Amino acid sequence: MRKALQLTDCGILCAASVVGKTEKNGPLGNWFDLHGDNDRFGQRTWEKAEAEMQRMALNTALAKGKLHDTALDAIFAGDLLNQCIGAAYGLKDFNVPYFGLYGACSTAAEGLMLAAMLVSRGAYRRAAAVASSHNCTAERQYRSPLEYGAQRAPTAQWTVTGAGAFVVGSAREAQAHIRAVLPGTVIEKGVRDAANMGAAMAPAAADTLLRFFRETHTVPADFDLIVTGDLGYEGGDILCDLMQIEGVDIRSTYNDCGMMIYSRDTQDTHAGGSGCGCSAAVLASYLLPKLAEGSLRRVLFIGTGAMMSPQIIQQGECIPAVAHLVCLAAKEEEAWKLC
Amino acid sequence: MRKALQLTDCGILCAASVVGKTEKNGPLGNWFDLHGDNDRFGQRTWEKAEAEMQRMALNTALAKGKLHDTALDAIFAGDLLNQCIGAAYGLKDFNVPYFGLYGACSTAAEGLMLAAMLVSRGAYRRAAAVASSHNCTAERQYRSPLEYGAQRAPTAQWTVTGAGAFVVGSAREAQAHIRAVLPGTVIEKGVRDAANMGAAMAPAAADTLLRFFRETHTVPADFDLIVTGDLGYEGGDILCDLMQIEGVDIRSTYNDCGMMIYSRDTQDTHAGGSGCGCSAAVLASYLLPKLAEGSLRRVLFIGTGAMMSPQIIQQGECIPAVAHLVCLAAKEEEAWKLC
Repeated sequence: MRKALQLTDCGILCAASVVGKTEKNGPLGNWFDLHGDNDRFGQRTWEKAEAEMQRMALNTALAKGKLHDTALDAIFAGDLLNQCIGAAYGLKDFNVPYFGLYGACSTAAEGLMLAAMLVSRGAYRRAAAVASSHNCTAERQYRSPLEYGAQRAPTAQWTVTGAGAFVVGSAREAQAHIRAVLPGTVIEKGVRDAANMGAAMAPAAADTLLRFFRETHTVPADFDLIVTGDLGYEGGDILCDLMQIEGVDIRSTYNDCGMMIYSRDTQDTHAGGSGCGCSAAVLASYLLPKLAEGSLRRVLFIGTGAMMSPQIIQQGECIPAVAHLVCLAAKEEEAWKLC
Repeated sequence: MRKALQLTDCGILCAASVVGKTEKNGPLGNWFDLHGDNDRFGQRTWEKAEAEMQRMALNTALAKGKLHDTALDAIFAGDLLNQCIGAAYGLKDFNVPYFGLYGACSTAAEGLMLAAMLVSRGAYRRAAAVASSHNCTAERQYRSPLEYGAQRAPTAQWTVTGAGAFVVGSAREAQAHIRAVLPGTVIEKGVRDAANMGAAMAPAAADTLLRFFRETHTVPADFDLIVTGDLGYEGGDILCDLMQIEGVDIRSTYNDCGMMIYSRDTQDTHAGGSGCGCSAAVLASYLLPKLAEGSLRRVLFIGTGAMMSPQIIQQGECIPAVAHLVCLAAKEEEAWKLC
C-alpha cells in the first residue's frame, strides 16, 4: 500500500520567500518578498546568512498571515548543509516544536506533506514548513569554494540563494488547498555524475508522477501546471522523455522551478537553478499567489531531491533521488473530486 | 498550543538492532539482534558499513514481525552523516515512501513520533522508523580520523556503532503501546564545547520532560523508567540537577541509553555512549522486550540531539539541542489514563 493520500480541510495559509541578488535579478524577481543585495543578510559567514534567511522567511510568512509563532504547533524544516544547520540555527528562536528534515532539494515538499497530513488528520491546527539553500554554502560544501573559480559542467545547475516558508492550516482560511500528497520512494538508476543532478532526479520524479496519475485516475490535462522543484533543463527534458515512453505526455503543462527562476538568455546558470530554496521560494512567492487569485487552479508540485554526499560519491556510489508530490488546488476547485 | 499529543491505537509491532563489536562486548551485548565482529559489515568503507547496518536492522525488524516491505506505508529515517547518507543508501532498496529526517541523535524518537502520529490518526497502517550511527564515520566527520589517535576529553562520549529499526502499527498487534508523544523545541543555552554534548543537550531534555509532566499532570513516580537517549554520565547528571531545581526529582527512575550500553568499569568510553544508534539499539533490543513481557510498564523515552556541525562550531556558534519524548506503555496498562 503506497497510495496517494487524499486530504481534506487543509491548505497553505500564508507563505514568504527570501532570495539573493541573482534571484532578484531573474524573471521572478518582483515576486519575492525579501532580498539581499550581497547575499550576506547581515551575517559574517555564508552558513549564518543561510540560517538568517530561514528565520526571515518564517518571520515574514507569519507576519503576512498575521500570526504569532504561538499559533504554530510544529515546524518541519531542513536544508542541504551538513547537519542541517541552516534550519537548526535559523529557527532556534521560534518557541515551536521542531522536526528536522533531510530530503535534499525535496525538503519544501517533504515539510508540506507532513504538515498537511498532520493538519488534515487533526493532530495539529497549524504547522510550518521551511527550506533554504545558499549558492555560496552549497558550492563550497558540494564542489569547491567560489573563490577557486572552478569551471562548471554544462549540465551543472546553479544553487539558488533562497528560502521559503509556509504555514499550513485549515482550508477555510487557506490561500490554496492541499488536496493530496504522495511521498516518493528512493530511486537510483545508476547516475554517478555529481554535475548532473537533473539526470539523477528525473527517474524519481517520473516514478512519483506516474504513480499519482495511476492511483488517482487523472491525466496531465487535468492540471494547469505540473511543476518539479529543480530538475533544470537537463532533468526536465529527461523527465518528459521518461513520461513519454510510458505514454504520458506532460510537455504542454510541464515546468520546473529551476527553469523559471533564472533567465536563460541573460543569466548564465547552465542547466538552471537547484537547491531546497529553489522550489520553496518559487512556490511561496510566484505559484501560491496565482493559486490564490485563481489564475492557476490545479497544480502538481513535485519536490525533487538528490541524496548523495560528496564523500559517498568519492567512494564510487551512484546518486539516489526522491520526489515528493503535493497536489494543490485553488479554492474555486472545492467541488473537484480526485478519485 | 504546544501540547503533548495523546495517541490511541498505536504501538511498536516489531523492532531490531544491529551493533558493532564494542557494543556487543558491553553489558547489553546479549540483547542485540545482530552484531559485526569488525564493524565493517562486509563493506569497504565505514559509511557503507553504516548504511548496511540500517538495511540489516529494518530487514531484521520486518522478519521478526513476519512482514514484507509492502506492509509499510512509509519509512522515517536518518543518521548523523553529512546529507544523511546512512539512511538514504541503506534503505534505497526498500520500495517504500521515504521521509528523510535530521534530528541528530534524537532521530529514533523523531521517527517514532511521526510514525505514531500518522498511524494513530489513520493516515498510515504501518510505518517504520530507522536510525543509525557508527563510531568510525562519526569520529572522522565530527572530530578526526581514528588513525590520528587524538586524545579525548573526559566529558566526551563514545559514538555507538549501532542501528535500530521499529515498525509502528495498530495497538492490537503491538509489543508495546505508544501512548503519547511530545516533540521538543530547539533549546540553546550557550554551551559551545563540542566535547561536551551532554551539557548541551541536558537543558533540552529538561524542557521537554517538565513540559510533559505539567501538561499530563504526571510525576516521575508514575513511570518505571525515564530514559534519555545519549546524555551520558555528564549530561544525565546535569539533567537530574536541572529537574531538581524545578522541584522534580527523577533520580530514582532515571537512566540513559548512553550509560547503559557500555560498562563504566571495563570499557573506557569516558562520559558514556552517544549517537543516533545508541537510543535506537537500546530501545529496540533491551527496553522493548521488557515492555512486551511487562517487566517495564510505563516508560518515558526521550531522544536527545545536538544539532551543530563542526563548521558552525568553528564559526563560533553555540550548540542547539532538541529532545523528543515518546511515552511507551505495556499492554497491561491499557486502562491507564494520561490526563
